[in-house]
Amino acid sequence: MTKKVITFGEVMMRLSPPGYEKFSQASHFELVYGGGEANVAISCAYLGMKAAHVTRFPDNALGKAATQFLRKHWLSTEHVLYGDQMMGKYFLEKGAVHRPSEVIYEREGSSFSLIEPAMINWEDVLKDADWFHWTGITPAISEGAAKCCLEAIKTANKLGIMVSGDINSRSNMWKYGKSMQQIIPNLAQHCDVIICSSSGMREMFGLEGKFQSLAEQIITLYPKVNKVVKKTRTTLSASHHQIKGKMWNGEEYIKTDKLNITHIIDRVGTGDAFAAGLIYGLLHFDDEQALDFATAACALKHTVPGDVNTVSLENVQSLMEGDTSGAIKR
Amino acid sequence: MTKKVITFGEVMMRLSPPGYEKFSQASHFELVYGGGEANVAISCAYLGMKAAHVTRFPDNALGKAATQFLRKHWLSTEHVLYGDQMMGKYFLEKGAVHRPSEVIYEREGSSFSLIEPAMINWEDVLKDADWFHWTGITPAISEGAAKCCLEAIKTANKLGIMVSGDINSRSNMWKYGKSMQQIIPNLAQHCDVIICSSSGMREMFGLEGKFQSLAEQIITLYPKVNKVVKKTRTTLSASHHQIKGKMWNGEEYIKTDKLNITHIIDRVGTGDAFAAGLIYGLLHFDDEQALDFATAACALKHTVPGDVNTVSLENVQSLMEGDTSGAIKR
Amino acid sequence: MTKKVITFGEVMMRLSPPGYEKFSQASHFELVYGGGEANVAISCAYLGMKAAHVTRFPDNALGKAATQFLRKHWLSTEHVLYGDQMMGKYFLEKGAVHRPSEVIYEREGSSFSLIEPAMINWEDVLKDADWFHWTGITPAISEGAAKCCLEAIKTANKLGIMVSGDINSRSNMWKYGKSMQQIIPNLAQHCDVIICSSSGMREMFGLEGKFQSLAEQIITLYPKVNKVVKKTRTTLSASHHQIKGKMWNGEEYIKTDKLNITHIIDRVGTGDAFAAGLIYGLLHFDDEQALDFATAACALKHTVPGDVNTVSLENVQSLMEGDTSGAIKR
Amino acid sequence: MTKKVITFGEVMMRLSPPGYEKFSQASHFELVYGGGEANVAISCAYLGMKAAHVTRFPDNALGKAATQFLRKHWLSTEHVLYGDQMMGKYFLEKGAVHRPSEVIYEREGSSFSLIEPAMINWEDVLKDADWFHWTGITPAISEGAAKCCLEAIKTANKLGIMVSGDINSRSNMWKYGKSMQQIIPNLAQHCDVIICSSSGMREMFGLEGKFQSLAEQIITLYPKVNKVVKKTRTTLSASHHQIKGKMWNGEEYIKTDKLNITHIIDRVGTGDAFAAGLIYGLLHFDDEQALDFATAACALKHTVPGDVNTVSLENVQSLMEGDTSGAIKR
Amino acid sequence: MTKKVITFGEVMMRLSPPGYEKFSQASHFELVYGGGEANVAISCAYLGMKAAHVTRFPDNALGKAATQFLRKHWLSTEHVLYGDQMMGKYFLEKGAVHRPSEVIYEREGSSFSLIEPAMINWEDVLKDADWFHWTGITPAISEGAAKCCLEAIKTANKLGIMVSGDINSRSNMWKYGKSMQQIIPNLAQHCDVIICSSSGMREMFGLEGKFQSLAEQIITLYPKVNKVVKKTRTTLSASHHQIKGKMWNGEEYIKTDKLNITHIIDRVGTGDAFAAGLIYGLLHFDDEQALDFATAACALKHTVPGDVNTVSLENVQSLMEGDTSGAIKR
Amino acid sequence: MTKKVITFGEVMMRLSPPGYEKFSQASHFELVYGGGEANVAISCAYLGMKAAHVTRFPDNALGKAATQFLRKHWLSTEHVLYGDQMMGKYFLEKGAVHRPSEVIYEREGSSFSLIEPAMINWEDVLKDADWFHWTGITPAISEGAAKCCLEAIKTANKLGIMVSGDINSRSNMWKYGKSMQQIIPNLAQHCDVIICSSSGMREMFGLEGKFQSLAEQIITLYPKVNKVVKKTRTTLSASHHQIKGKMWNGEEYIKTDKLNITHIIDRVGTGDAFAAGLIYGLLHFDDEQALDFATAACALKHTVPGDVNTVSLENVQSLMEGDTSGAIKR
Repeated sequence: MTKKVITFGEVMMRLSPPGYEKFSQASHFELVYGGGEANVAISCAYLGMKAAHVTRFPDNALGKAATQFLRKHWLSTEHVLYGDQMMGKYFLEKGAVHRPSEVIYEREGSSFSLIEPAMINWEDVLKDADWFHWTGITPAISEGAAKCCLEAIKTANKLGIMVSGDINSRSNMWKYGKSMQQIIPNLAQHCDVIICSSSGMREMFGLEGKFQSLAEQIITLYPKVNKVVKKTRTTLSASHHQIKGKMWNGEEYIKTDKLNITHIIDRVGTGDAFAAGLIYGLLHFDDEQALDFATAACALKHTVPGDVNTVSLENVQSLMEGDTSGAIKR
Repeated sequence: MTKKVITFGEVMMRLSPPGYEKFSQASHFELVYGGGEANVAISCAYLGMKAAHVTRFPDNALGKAATQFLRKHWLSTEHVLYGDQMMGKYFLEKGAVHRPSEVIYEREGSSFSLIEPAMINWEDVLKDADWFHWTGITPAISEGAAKCCLEAIKTANKLGIMVSGDINSRSNMWKYGKSMQQIIPNLAQHCDVIICSSSGMREMFGLEGKFQSLAEQIITLYPKVNKVVKKTRTTLSASHHQIKGKMWNGEEYIKTDKLNITHIIDRVGTGDAFAAGLIYGLLHFDDEQALDFATAACALKHTVPGDVNTVSLENVQSLMEGDTSGAIKR
Repeated sequence: MTKKVITFGEVMMRLSPPGYEKFSQASHFELVYGGGEANVAISCAYLGMKAAHVTRFPDNALGKAATQFLRKHWLSTEHVLYGDQMMGKYFLEKGAVHRPSEVIYEREGSSFSLIEPAMINWEDVLKDADWFHWTGITPAISEGAAKCCLEAIKTANKLGIMVSGDINSRSNMWKYGKSMQQIIPNLAQHCDVIICSSSGMREMFGLEGKFQSLAEQIITLYPKVNKVVKKTRTTLSASHHQIKGKMWNGEEYIKTDKLNITHIIDRVGTGDAFAAGLIYGLLHFDDEQALDFATAACALKHTVPGDVNTVSLENVQSLMEGDTSGAIKR
Repeated sequence: MTKKVITFGEVMMRLSPPGYEKFSQASHFELVYGGGEANVAISCAYLGMKAAHVTRFPDNALGKAATQFLRKHWLSTEHVLYGDQMMGKYFLEKGAVHRPSEVIYEREGSSFSLIEPAMINWEDVLKDADWFHWTGITPAISEGAAKCCLEAIKTANKLGIMVSGDINSRSNMWKYGKSMQQIIPNLAQHCDVIICSSSGMREMFGLEGKFQSLAEQIITLYPKVNKVVKKTRTTLSASHHQIKGKMWNGEEYIKTDKLNITHIIDRVGTGDAFAAGLIYGLLHFDDEQALDFATAACALKHTVPGDVNTVSLENVQSLMEGDTSGAIKR
Repeated sequence: MTKKVITFGEVMMRLSPPGYEKFSQASHFELVYGGGEANVAISCAYLGMKAAHVTRFPDNALGKAATQFLRKHWLSTEHVLYGDQMMGKYFLEKGAVHRPSEVIYEREGSSFSLIEPAMINWEDVLKDADWFHWTGITPAISEGAAKCCLEAIKTANKLGIMVSGDINSRSNMWKYGKSMQQIIPNLAQHCDVIICSSSGMREMFGLEGKFQSLAEQIITLYPKVNKVVKKTRTTLSASHHQIKGKMWNGEEYIKTDKLNITHIIDRVGTGDAFAAGLIYGLLHFDDEQALDFATAACALKHTVPGDVNTVSLENVQSLMEGDTSGAIKR
Repeated sequence: MTKKVITFGEVMMRLSPPGYEKFSQASHFELVYGGGEANVAISCAYLGMKAAHVTRFPDNALGKAATQFLRKHWLSTEHVLYGDQMMGKYFLEKGAVHRPSEVIYEREGSSFSLIEPAMINWEDVLKDADWFHWTGITPAISEGAAKCCLEAIKTANKLGIMVSGDINSRSNMWKYGKSMQQIIPNLAQHCDVIICSSSGMREMFGLEGKFQSLAEQIITLYPKVNKVVKKTRTTLSASHHQIKGKMWNGEEYIKTDKLNITHIIDRVGTGDAFAAGLIYGLLHFDDEQALDFATAACALKHTVPGDVNTVSLENVQSLMEGDTSGAIKR
């Protein structure tokens, strides 16, 4: 039976100057859409899963166009809400070598940020799902979004659906009077799988130590959690990264080989590709294979323009099995 | 001596699907900038005047890029302010024949809307100017913007600088607790030249009658005002308009021949081109010529992509003198 | 309850030089997808109906991309089949004034042309539908396609679902050994609504006379049929058409005012927009209004690039009610 | 036997802002090539004739690319010369309605302007040709170009090849010390067919009167000339022209119906399309048909982007026979 | 005397999403043309040789446009045939790093595949040629193509023209009832120069061993063959290859230095660039230089978008002589 | 107080095929503007300085558009002159790996080359400046340009303004009867800072030795000069360079770490970015920091499309301080 994943979070209009133009040079913006959670759902859909995303868009032609993007990329959109008038946005200027990419967000007051728990019937949304995924961005957006997220997680727990949280957040996003330390651990404790950097775990849970130790502490603290996972990134330049996956599953410490991404096309959404690969992997493989699969998916996303990982299952499997050649397929 | 005009108002990022694509079809947005008052300043600059625009942009790379657009189109930008983080925006889908163009605004909470009188030293801004121009959009945006506008007008009066107001407004824009009837007449009374549709005059001043009668009443009511001007537009379709200029100057009722715009390229900013033509005309010609010049400028704008009228003095003069042939210049 | 329409037919990749370039000038092709029946379904979806399309695509990334186009434009695609390797295509060079648009088809041997009745369970497909629509192109493609079409119509009859056929066909398409005279009448007799030009009716049914007489003869011949509809087009040039709708509903002869389309953007798919408007209209209005609605939808399609009519219900209603001004919406 | 035409003249790089952008708005230039005489040759080639063009380009990659443009559009380029370093150029800003198109030339010192008679062996070039065509632009460029042109014409006379001259010139082009009155008549007298406006004939030959009278005087003066032809253009706006062909063949005064070009795509090169149509027509039809054919070709060019008329023989014949509908061809 | 090469084979329309977009993301396709043998001819033409290509295109505007591409890139096209209606095509999605490029062919039933020996008079085609080149793709397409190829080779032999075959083929292309083992050796035996990978030689000739041994066996088997050549490619990733040339000329085993292509722009057609370099090299240099030249040409092709190698003789010579710096030329 | 730099030199229209297309493939040219000295001014402006550029453009719409480019990129343009009709130009074909970029200049007879000393009042231009910068290209263009340059330098000396000269020149540019040895040293002697390669110093001053020795000799010869600076470039391929800065300041020999630019986007103008960084650095830091800053600015320019370095002060400082990671900024 094809597995189904549900995700929840803001989807932004992404506007970027073409190629390597800077904002000061652009005479048009390339238009795609992205958001950490929807990126995960789409990536899962390209791997062959069923996937639906829950979000809220402006009730106008721009909101409709955003939904159309999700539909085009295989998501079910029957749970998309419409209301208010502002589309969340981010502007992306793509860097290279020593020049950083720059991102400017415009998401305050967006339709999504005004979401409220009463707007979503989670029992209905999650009724035939196998997995629910959220990220640490969502509860940072607004109190309403945080509440919706908690309710989703609790409903998933109640229905026996697996829950993963990519709980990394940015402290400068938290502007509605709560800190990430107040909110994130409360959400994280109900998850089966946590994805988080070591520094994130130290910052959010007030813990100390390195990855394995942090992961062990988390699992001890929150018995519902049974896997803690992260992706290590070495940033040699804006054009050249190396990544590696790591997991503590309560029993063994697993890590993958390093993947060397020498000619980056688009770095955005690579963490989401990792999360999606992990979800697919844990649903179809053993832990070690799952981590290899997630890391391969992440690596491949660096070569796909846009926020979302549109590579196929075959592509990921081939890289997961060690074919790094990228040799042409005819 | 080259004359100098100062304008004040919001400049928005304008994002539009290419050609006649609908929002649902766009994979990129064409990027220009526009706003009624800056459009007037730029148009005056292309006609050969000095021109500066006063506005407020986000303090980031997008705000800088907006300023660069104004500089490119010949404006002085030493009075541009930077602060807060949101760029005003509008999305434009271009129509044709029976299909209307559609505009979606996103300007609530923009950097401009948060402007306050204390931010601008109008005596300094206006010190060597010959003309100040404002529109009925600006006081609708926020109380701060309305106050700045009033202060600018009063300072202009004090310095003996001519003031024109294109006082048309849209009642659905007024959201900060004041109505246009409360604010606009108070601004209009200090102007030398008022541009307004007949329906606008009836709605804002509570008057009755047709154009000439309305204009006479305004001039009686507000002795500072000495010309009331409007442009009549017949909308045969989204691709075909006809325009005509009308003026009451306290002494005679002047109207121009009808100009027949059979193949519209971009309808936005045509009213601003009219206002700019009027300012240039009143500074350089007699009233009748000025109105002919304004109407010709307006007609030509319909053939220029973007918000701003970048045609040359020669182009406008040639049409004003009756050459409607558009014959190729080599 | 939202009504649901099902359509069946080939969807082709449409490749066209940008703007008014000729094939000899193109260095890239714009890519959209289209096919008479899917165009109808998409148009209905933009008007607010539920819509699904049944077709068959190559089992490769191009077939998937075609499905993604349908999904983006709101169709349900759960009944899309995949198999074989060739995507049907057409190349479109857009004309203007005296220069005709030129179309080159490449659809022989396409995945759709190899469709067979056993591949589709029509009872399942049609189970919650309100309307089934087919065109005279489909049975011309292959014997398999013709059989599928007949089976769909008969199943619809059995389930009490309304059936419309836009039965115009082109005799030079019929290459598999059957003529349109042998096949079309047999399909048409099971329809509730027939859309056909007068010349088409004369050619396919061997009848004589003008529209009203032809329509009366058809209804007499085929009692299941209760409305015969056509759209009259006056082709003043490639850039300027006039259209009018006509209907015989067994009781009265209805015709609409002429709509004058003075600046055509894309002429392809305008007949499909008419058919979609008719379906929507007959489901929601009386016959006269339905015909007005269909004609307005048809007129608006001439201003939308691509094969499909993506205008909104509001746009069509506004034109149907006589607002031909295309005045900008803010 | 397929007929062969030889033309001689400068080919310029044409750089134009996309669509209706003005020079002040362009961030890229569309690149094609054009020149009155090569335009004629290419048009003849698309109509099915053999055609070669003689010109001189810079000896670098830009000169090669210009030759490649000619080859792509079916010309023989074995007589193209290379030398010096500057490519002739023109910049074209496309107008609409009342806004004129603007052309800026940069051709002084170009490789072509430095051409000298010794560089071309006309006997070799013309050996298997049926027709030689030149225009009044070429002798204006430089003394060398004028001499080459004269030599070509005389050689054609010697070889019994038909010669046509589109002798219109612009007096502001003549900068090398000769006037057009000194040069053009001397070239014109050796032609079989002269294409010239009435005002051109008055200006260059010092004659008086209207077209028919002027034509009669020319033929009396220069017995070699047996047809004088012109095209009348009514410029309603930059987007809407009307044209008509006129001919005096020594015996009768022929004129065509008016063709009404309501939506102009590209006005440049329409005169060259007329000349090419005339050459083709005179080689294949009687005089009246030839003039109809020329006028139809001219009208169609207004709908083709670029300098050159790439429409087919079928297109021209269909319009010549009166089908102005531009109805889609499938 | 400039040398002349003749090639024979299918030329396909190549359609690719821009940049690194995947098929699922494309809203337009970039359009070029390519085919192994025409690529060789064009490359030779850019190096300064005369070159003609023999192929068959649909008898419509698309076939004409394909011919125009060949003409633009300097080929003689007087032997291009037209007939039937389907253009061979391939769709190319460009990969990067670990993501493979993907190619989808649509060439079954193409105009070229329906070619028959009676359509070509090889004596006429080859009469003034110095070299004939074919590849292992052509005989795989259809029996007719294979027969034409054999006839071309035999005619070349008869006329004393050098023959090279790039005999690599793909077994999954052979669908008309013959295997490559049945056809290729029969064609290869009449060649002077064979280009083939070691695995290809093992598969097609049933031989064993490594390159030098295989080459020796071939030359022993087929005395007409006097050189066997291959290019070794190390695929580090889709963005980074290394290549090396190898030759056995019956007397010595020659190999080149490795060329390290660190930033691939377009990998397609690099083998054809090698073959063209080899032909040019063998006609102008000694064997060792020829192999260096071929390898340099191959390396340079990786930096040119499209199928064809448009670099100049100077570029190849400079790299052949060891300048790998790519330093800017002013 | 914000420092102000004045530069003087030609600004050319830069026309380049998109991406990695060769001239033979382009169907449009990307349009920017550049020139060594204006590039320096713009780069200084982006770093936060005031900057004005003195040049001369054609008196037409193209000259105006060039000025608009300078204005957009923050320059003061009140000293731009207009006259004559030819815009200087260069065509740039971008290379990769082993394929060199190719530049074709068209600047003979340009409006700038016809500049004369009487046209510029240098006292007025330089009155509130802190720095004047020139390059060795300007005096090569024409005698008038060389004289203007000398006058500017002398005026700067008189006004106590710092002068830097990037004195590298190309001997093949000197066509007006003077050699660079005759002119450059005479200009260089009045400079405070000289930027020159070692080979340049040997060639222009007739000196011998390596950088430090050459620099010492220069400073001994010309006491006004107090710093000699150069940038060393290792060209591994067209896509991969390494750079290092070197300075002799009369007291110590300073050199920077090597910066490794692994994925070049646009190599043009990198020397100008170095010069601008040096000017900014010397005005704000000590010599060692200034050289680090210059080298960082140079490195970053390799990642920015176009001639001009539009990176921010923050970007340069971050790299100068050793952050080579290019990690994304949110």
